Amino acid sequence: MNKNIVGIIGLGRIGKLHFDNIINYQGVEIRYVFDAFATDLNDYLKDYPNVKVVKDYEEILNDKEVNVVFVCTPTTTHSEIIIKAANAGKNIFCEKPISFSEEETLSAYEAVEKANVKFQIGFNRRFDKNFMDAKKAILDNKIGELHILNITSRDPEPPNLDYVKKSGGIFMDMSIHDFDMIRFISSSDVEEVYVNGAALVNPDIAKVDDIDTALISLKLKNKAIGSIDNSRQAVYGYDQRLEAFGNLGKVNVKNNLQDNICIANSDSVMSAKPQWFFLERYKEAYILETKLFFEAVSNNKETCPNFLDGIKAQKIAKAAKASLISGKPEIVENVD
Amino acid sequence: MNKNIVGIIGLGRIGKLHFDNIINYQGVEIRYVFDAFATDLNDYLKDYPNVKVVKDYEEILNDKEVNVVFVCTPTTTHSEIIIKAANAGKNIFCEKPISFSEEETLSAYEAVEKANVKFQIGFNRRFDKNFMDAKKAILDNKIGELHILNITSRDPEPPNLDYVKKSGGIFMDMSIHDFDMIRFISSSDVEEVYVNGAALVNPDIAKVDDIDTALISLKLKNKAIGSIDNSRQAVYGYDQRLEAFGNLGKVNVKNNLQDNICIANSDSVMSAKPQWFFLERYKEAYILETKLFFEAVSNNKETCPNFLDGIKAQKIAKAAKASLISGKPEIVENVD
Amino acid sequence: MNKNIVGIIGLGRIGKLHFDNIINYQGVEIRYVFDAFATDLNDYLKDYPNVKVVKDYEEILNDKEVNVVFVCTPTTTHSEIIIKAANAGKNIFCEKPISFSEEETLSAYEAVEKANVKFQIGFNRRFDKNFMDAKKAILDNKIGELHILNITSRDPEPPNLDYVKKSGGIFMDMSIHDFDMIRFISSSDVEEVYVNGAALVNPDIAKVDDIDTALISLKLKNKAIGSIDNSRQAVYGYDQRLEAFGNLGKVNVKNNLQDNICIANSDSVMSAKPQWFFLERYKEAYILETKLFFEAVSNNKETCPNFLDGIKAQKIAKAAKASLISGKPEIVENVD
Amino acid sequence: MNKNIVGIIGLGRIGKLHFDNIINYQGVEIRYVFDAFATDLNDYLKDYPNVKVVKDYEEILNDKEVNVVFVCTPTTTHSEIIIKAANAGKNIFCEKPISFSEEETLSAYEAVEKANVKFQIGFNRRFDKNFMDAKKAILDNKIGELHILNITSRDPEPPNLDYVKKSGGIFMDMSIHDFDMIRFISSSDVEEVYVNGAALVNPDIAKVDDIDTALISLKLKNKAIGSIDNSRQAVYGYDQRLEAFGNLGKVNVKNNLQDNICIANSDSVMSAKPQWFFLERYKEAYILETKLFFEAVSNNKETCPNFLDGIKAQKIAKAAKASLISGKPEIVENVD
Repeated sequence: MNKNIVGIIGLGRIGKLHFDNIINYQGVEIRYVFDAFATDLNDYLKDYPNVKVVKDYEEILNDKEVNVVFVCTPTTTHSEIIIKAANAGKNIFCEKPISFSEEETLSAYEAVEKANVKFQIGFNRRFDKNFMDAKKAILDNKIGELHILNITSRDPEPPNLDYVKKSGGIFMDMSIHDFDMIRFISSSDVEEVYVNGAALVNPDIAKVDDIDTALISLKLKNKAIGSIDNSRQAVYGYDQRLEAFGNLGKVNVKNNLQDNICIANSDSVMSAKPQWFFLERYKEAYILETKLFFEAVSNNKETCPNFLDGIKAQKIAKAAKASLISGKPEIVENVD
Repeated sequence: MNKNIVGIIGLGRIGKLHFDNIINYQGVEIRYVFDAFATDLNDYLKDYPNVKVVKDYEEILNDKEVNVVFVCTPTTTHSEIIIKAANAGKNIFCEKPISFSEEETLSAYEAVEKANVKFQIGFNRRFDKNFMDAKKAILDNKIGELHILNITSRDPEPPNLDYVKKSGGIFMDMSIHDFDMIRFISSSDVEEVYVNGAALVNPDIAKVDDIDTALISLKLKNKAIGSIDNSRQAVYGYDQRLEAFGNLGKVNVKNNLQDNICIANSDSVMSAKPQWFFLERYKEAYILETKLFFEAVSNNKETCPNFLDGIKAQKIAKAAKASLISGKPEIVENVD
Repeated sequence: MNKNIVGIIGLGRIGKLHFDNIINYQGVEIRYVFDAFATDLNDYLKDYPNVKVVKDYEEILNDKEVNVVFVCTPTTTHSEIIIKAANAGKNIFCEKPISFSEEETLSAYEAVEKANVKFQIGFNRRFDKNFMDAKKAILDNKIGELHILNITSRDPEPPNLDYVKKSGGIFMDMSIHDFDMIRFISSSDVEEVYVNGAALVNPDIAKVDDIDTALISLKLKNKAIGSIDNSRQAVYGYDQRLEAFGNLGKVNVKNNLQDNICIANSDSVMSAKPQWFFLERYKEAYILETKLFFEAVSNNKETCPNFLDGIKAQKIAKAAKASLISGKPEIVENVD
Repeated sequence: MNKNIVGIIGLGRIGKLHFDNIINYQGVEIRYVFDAFATDLNDYLKDYPNVKVVKDYEEILNDKEVNVVFVCTPTTTHSEIIIKAANAGKNIFCEKPISFSEEETLSAYEAVEKANVKFQIGFNRRFDKNFMDAKKAILDNKIGELHILNITSRDPEPPNLDYVKKSGGIFMDMSIHDFDMIRFISSSDVEEVYVNGAALVNPDIAKVDDIDTALISLKLKNKAIGSIDNSRQAVYGYDQRLEAFGNLGKVNVKNNLQDNICIANSDSVMSAKPQWFFLERYKEAYILETKLFFEAVSNNKETCPNFLDGIKAQKIAKAAKASLISGKPEIVENVD
């Protein structure tokens, strides 16, 4: 097994998360990092003298020994970087969503297909033990034929308005994980979407044409009924649950709690809140997704979730946005 | 406090349930029962020699001492009985739904209003300790402003097709309880409904123009978002849960289980299933609803839920049916 | 089936509980009540004009039609009443414990044996659905051979000192239920007892030679190890749990809660406390124990728990008291 | 902060666990490993060319730059190694128990005291988030004054007889963790111990003078009552729970489960079993204990748990063994 030589493009919160995870992997060398905005990387990198900070990410692409790039920059830059990296023959791990523009996404897809490089999209939740075990239970026929699939997905606190403006909207920024999860758990595509949503947490969000609370109703190709319950603010913590209901039973995923202790007094019985946010909740999932990505690269296996998974989630997000505007159910475009 | 002299019209499953509950109430005398179909009432009544079985329910209405009637007959006969009972000055406890026809419902409403008698509709779930405590928590501002209200309401086993044909459809027969629960918990009316539903449990149900699985999305007058998750068949038992989510927290109602024991072995950890069906789950609620009804009658207080609550739930059911047919969200008619 | 004609001797809290439960049973007539201390029975009995209050309980015993007496008086009077009732040929339901004196207990036992009347002791917890289901799981071999049996049994609030003085001590008054539960769940007798206890809730209890907190370690005849964890004061409510552990798994009984709702906010996640005390927790068990008692009487079947069960629990309590004094494990006397 | 130069003495299961944890710590260099029995270390160490395998652990002690040794050899060798390491001025992290012999333990203690080096004993459970949070709740007065402290501690499967023979007996090998946990949670010493135990899992264990099932009753210096429930075989997995009960409430630690999903079908409702054994259950605790050990060494702070904590747990184990033999409660020797 050859060593994977890696460049990380974008070293913000999520880029650093991947850096910390993969820096100690056997058979992985982070040779470069690039970040257009960072000024303090020297401090962050002080224990890693062999990691080179570059001022232009093309330097990374020009190093023939680099076989993997991580794309962790703002979404608007993804497609350009993907295209250049694919053209340079690099295998790509890209954060979600691929882009905000369908044209850009398709151009990037074509470049990746043409270059025949590995591409994995950062739908980290697929690698969470709970969700994997739930999917396995369904594949093992523990619940029979799927009838209803409900996802609860609420963030602990809303992003600021500046973030919201650049986020691509709640469906592209937040629900896109849930759209992918619907597809992952059901092993089915989505055909139609209806959104019942509003700006209830922060009315100012309505002013930037977005919402913060939504109940999304979905019709799946396999005839099952889906729902996604989103809020930008669950004050008790990151609420990440799921229930798959079928003709032989149901499986549900509960939240991971901050600890497993319980205090009872004369007032009530108290247990811990859910883990606060995605860094805690999906800590292990973030590790597993990159472990499996490197395995796929090293052994020339299929990556999963792949580029098409990224496109399909984006198409559902597009239909959801249309439904919010029209007030009616909207058809999801099919791609294959 | 004068004695309440009662006639029960309709002594099927639900009529007998009320009979058994109220027969031992202090201050209540069941003087008459009527059932158009029953042939075996003598055996059922053998320990109650003072209860008279009549062949025509008008006999009951003609007894001036009778001040209360229970209407537990098939829904198609409700309006006629209500009108006659109201005209005879009787206070009325009527099972849900009031009728399948809006005209009949309104005629009955006018008769009750004109006669100025008490009227309570059998939305028994309002009297369940869990749901009452959840509503109290909301009124006590434990969750702040309501943003999302999700109801899970699944029967353990589907009725037979003959029942389904006469049932008025899933919305009028089954979801109507949930429509009332949405109004009860949210203290708000419903403005718009969208149904995502299908016959997934039993395809034959589609042939009689009905469905058995639904995800109902609701827009509430108070701006909150609602959902109702219905299935005619949850093989693990009667699934009656609720989650109310707001800007300060959430409250959720879990199922009552058949017992509170837990068995762990080398395969898994097993706990009890939910109580099997409504007779077990709402046993105490059925008692409380009639206790409070008699209290209202005896003390000339308002009944709750009243006739308007019955009408409003029916209007939501009508809009749900329209949405299922149109495939679009439908406006709920307002009444006041 | 002949009617059971009943006299209740002692109409305090527990006597009234039985009165309320059995008054509406089919085939049961409460003809007499007696209470040496009550002055207000007329008000309590106002809806039951056919129930006669007597000033001397022997009046009850002299009525040849009376076939059942309930003994709900203070413990010190039990044996005398039992003996007279047995001599009069009455079947007896007696509250626990049988007496504080071994001689009295044995005299009463002989009288009951000689008269060949039915006798049931009020170990109500045997009739709780949770404990019955746990015992059934063990008999169904769900946990294999029993190795450890732990009982948690804590009252919500301590009795006053006057009660404590007359109570016979914590083992005879409170733990006796747990001694019986150990025998019931394990289907085994107890051979040795060691008590680790103190007056931690209220030091004044030590002054009347009693304790309020105990960890009782038991050696069972079937080689299993038992423990009982007692406290007179669990501020969060009546704590009634059990865990039976064996070579194939374990079964545990959890508390019944006041409701099944859960509130989450930015501080914590709160669920309900256990039901407050024995009247709520064992409401259904109190009904079932008397239903089965009357069934045994009417059909001439064995009662359970019977007199010997009462004696055996008392013998364990005696050994526990001895252990508390000696500071060492003590042998339990065997009776059969 | 100077670099810590480490030698690991003993590279069996637990030695490798520490190796894997600390190898990537910033500021820590593992320079040597020693194992008297290992033959395959080259393969294990193939990615760590800078780690030197030595044939005699004194080589490690002779390297003046080494400031820390981990003692992970069989217990019988601990005291000798500790003494030599202390004499060489090394800071010591030592696995539990310190030794099986009181004399050896005291000699080692004197050497450590005289050399004034840091010493931490591997009571890893003190670093588990659940137990730390439970202790914090008690210190924050959430339960008031401690009255009862119950520990459940059951291994998933029994060791083989060969292991048992060399283990020092269940109290020294297994319960010693619980003795320390009693002290940690209660912030109190133990004064008296009574053991109710037997070989129920495997009767052959009795032949080597040991037991596999025990209910240990403890009297604490702070007047609280303690219990430890041990079994060598809980077929459903590693059972590690605790309940601390006081005059203002209780706190309990539940098991960590293998996942947080739940499957319901027509038979039952199933959730995951506890994490299988200590490697999973205490994975994070093993990391934290060594992180904090290195922090203490680097910053010249007190280690915790220290040598005295190791001695005190050993004294309780000795009294427990005496109690098992005498069949009576036994006093624990006090040391300070």
